[in-house]
Amino acid sequence: MLDQSPQLDRVFHALSDPTRRAVLDRLTQGPASVSELAAPFETTLAAIVQHVQVLEASGLISTEKIGRTRTCCVSAEAIGRAEQWLSARREIWEARLDRMEDYILELQTTEKKRGKRAHRK
Amino acid sequence: MLDQSPQLDRVFHALSDPTRRAVLDRLTQGPASVSELAAPFETTLAAIVQHVQVLEASGLISTEKIGRTRTCCVSAEAIGRAEQWLSARREIWEARLDRMEDYILELQTTEKKRGKRAHRK
Repeated sequence: MLDQSPQLDRVFHALSDPTRRAVLDRLTQGPASVSELAAPFETTLAAIVQHVQVLEASGLISTEKIGRTRTCCVSAEAIGRAEQWLSARREIWEARLDRMEDYILELQTTEKKRGKRAHRK
Repeated sequence: MLDQSPQLDRVFHALSDPTRRAVLDRLTQGPASVSELAAPFETTLAAIVQHVQVLEASGLISTEKIGRTRTCCVSAEAIGRAEQWLSARREIWEARLDRMEDYILELQTTEKKRGKRAHRK
């Protein structure tokens, strides 16, 4: 019954923080170093490093250290997986609502026909 | 710079737990009471009530109490908002990759033309 996906746990947990979403937003514009990512925030570099680690553990970003600089890059696949998880649920629910709507319309049409027949008698 | 959306914080936090995702999965099949939601889990009713409260606070589900029964129902809109947040980021990143690919192809074509000209001389 349980959705056994620790990866999804980590992805959604990573997305639940506004600073991490802002970091991800910045990275969709192109790769950046940790210092570049930290620049717009009134917080310590250490705090940003922690956010980057959470994002990396979730798979939403990848990082590579060349010399003294760690460069971060978005992973479209991980974003896509979380997106697909959501869209599948929304589609199941919307299909269910559509079927209910059809059923109600069918009931109304049957009711009208009955009404007409009763009127003719 | 920060994405000031406490609603998104709550939605992604709600989705970061496998039991809550399983509850949401069940609700995409149709509305259910809290006791019905709790049935498949080896946990206390109180724990499920807490998960339901987190899901309701996020807007992913709505609940209604009639008599002694609280019935829960999925909100396609809230799922759709989280989905759109993700898809917008993925699309920006993919468009960037496409532009980079075009640029590299352009460079390669220019390089080939140069090579041919140099060969003719």
